Amino acid sequence: MPSPLAVALGDPAGIGPEIVAKAWERRQSDRLPRFFAVGSAEAVAAVWNGPLAVVSGPEEAEAAFDTALPVIRVDRGTDIVPGRPTLEGARNAFDALELAVGLARSTAASGLVTGPVSKAQLYAVGFTHPGQTEFVAERCGVAADMVAMMLAGPSLRTVPVTTHVPLREVPSLLSTELIVAKGRTTIRALRRLFGIERPRLAVAGLNPHAGEGGALGREEIDVVEPAIERLREEDAEVTGPHAADTMFHARARANYDAALCLYHDQALVPLKTLHFDDGVNMTLGLPIVRTSPDHGTAFGIAGQDRAEPGAMIAALGMAAACAGRLTGA
Amino acid sequence: MPSPLAVALGDPAGIGPEIVAKAWERRQSDRLPRFFAVGSAEAVAAVWNGPLAVVSGPEEAEAAFDTALPVIRVDRGTDIVPGRPTLEGARNAFDALELAVGLARSTAASGLVTGPVSKAQLYAVGFTHPGQTEFVAERCGVAADMVAMMLAGPSLRTVPVTTHVPLREVPSLLSTELIVAKGRTTIRALRRLFGIERPRLAVAGLNPHAGEGGALGREEIDVVEPAIERLREEDAEVTGPHAADTMFHARARANYDAALCLYHDQALVPLKTLHFDDGVNMTLGLPIVRTSPDHGTAFGIAGQDRAEPGAMIAALGMAAACAGRLTGA
Repeated sequence: MPSPLAVALGDPAGIGPEIVAKAWERRQSDRLPRFFAVGSAEAVAAVWNGPLAVVSGPEEAEAAFDTALPVIRVDRGTDIVPGRPTLEGARNAFDALELAVGLARSTAASGLVTGPVSKAQLYAVGFTHPGQTEFVAERCGVAADMVAMMLAGPSLRTVPVTTHVPLREVPSLLSTELIVAKGRTTIRALRRLFGIERPRLAVAGLNPHAGEGGALGREEIDVVEPAIERLREEDAEVTGPHAADTMFHARARANYDAALCLYHDQALVPLKTLHFDDGVNMTLGLPIVRTSPDHGTAFGIAGQDRAEPGAMIAALGMAAACAGRLTGA
Repeated sequence: MPSPLAVALGDPAGIGPEIVAKAWERRQSDRLPRFFAVGSAEAVAAVWNGPLAVVSGPEEAEAAFDTALPVIRVDRGTDIVPGRPTLEGARNAFDALELAVGLARSTAASGLVTGPVSKAQLYAVGFTHPGQTEFVAERCGVAADMVAMMLAGPSLRTVPVTTHVPLREVPSLLSTELIVAKGRTTIRALRRLFGIERPRLAVAGLNPHAGEGGALGREEIDVVEPAIERLREEDAEVTGPHAADTMFHARARANYDAALCLYHDQALVPLKTLHFDDGVNMTLGLPIVRTSPDHGTAFGIAGQDRAEPGAMIAALGMAAACAGRLTGA
């Protein structure tokens, strides 16, 4: 039987504790894999009346899971008011992330699920990485350039080549090398984590109508097509550059396993249009499995019993499925 | 009773003739408004065995509509092979468009629906406008800057501020004035053509997360927000700048009547993701109603009885509904 998943609760004043607790409530109806929370037990108790089991490690967590939500407790910053983020809370989230990553690295946990954090708060307590993804990559000894962010829902997977940069900078940031690197990471992850023997990757163009043969922009010809040529050396079916607007309807989606997109909104607009409530963010290219629900801390509704656990449940399910393939379990 | 709609068949070697004929077949089941085709009767006969009535004008067309597809015949270029575009065929499409616009301008037709054309072919026969939209605007005496392209499906309407330009040029083409102009045209069209007394317009940001307060780009602060301020002087509810990726899921769409988008794919990706088969392209800001199915000539499947008339049927329905509001009929 595989180890349980480690779930870092994220910012203790956000909706992370609530959605993890609600996911545990649905462990049987949704056939969820076993998992344990890492973070502030007080933050969970502040928003949820169900049974908690403070445990010392994954083995104890595993034994407790059927009857209580197991929590490996992180002590700093336990004076929690839902919806009111504090620096102590951010330190707690940071500590919880560090511990959860370590457990996943050690294989005591079969994979890592991270709850939503506030980047601004984390920066204020000395977190020097752009986001959790880069932090996890570094702890795993992988260069940030070699990992990729996949957004996945039940009917679509997208991977943006560039992410959190101004749109104005995207054309000059795109290079054949970068597209090839993200494309390779995606193809290999589709094979290794999703069990797709010969992955089908659809590469988007940058310009309207994918540049219309150069009339509406030359990036497709100068940058994207050479990348596609090189990606065809992989054991995969690589197509494109496709006009972005005709890539994401149901019949088009049936033709590929993942869409490689060139900028943030090209990947995120179709994904969230279709799967706003159950989108999962997965980091590709790591030695471990790492997923997270594709939403933020939602401080505005924290502690009001209004948070929906759908995306957390999807993140748990995907992490378990991918972890099983990774280990052959 | 309102005048019938004029339907320019588009390129006679494309799927235009077939989808117009198939739409006529569904005139009763889909409760379509009365319409007549303008173009090559031979092109229709080449792909369809149903009853055609070659008529001399809208009144005669109206009388014929119940029992045959009325066609106001345009003679040039009648040697048609479906799927094989020719310069004579492009001249035929050009003539048909000119005549159909004239009939709509004269009110002999209550509105204009245009079938798909090949721009490359049209340019080769002396068509000097970027597309049909600009041609129709000029014939209506409206500057091209003052019209806007709306893409509309059953659950979403989007209007791009910039259209067929390389993505690289979008940031410098955007100005507060341009956003205000397109926004005003949209608001007024929602009121005049769609009968929405106090339109709700959602304006998209340009950058990921709408710039995140300037950290991911300044266009929202420098260009978009001032435009929104000015658009609030209209009798309308104007919101934004919104992060594009969270604007288009079902609950978000319930909050606005149209989304004002800043570039082609920002408007077209969500629209075609949701409404690939029944999207309508409508020109706003004209004295007449003009719609078209949101797809191309599809030369590759012309004459094979494979073309789906859904978007043409939607274009006819929307044109008739809007024309009725425009005239109070």
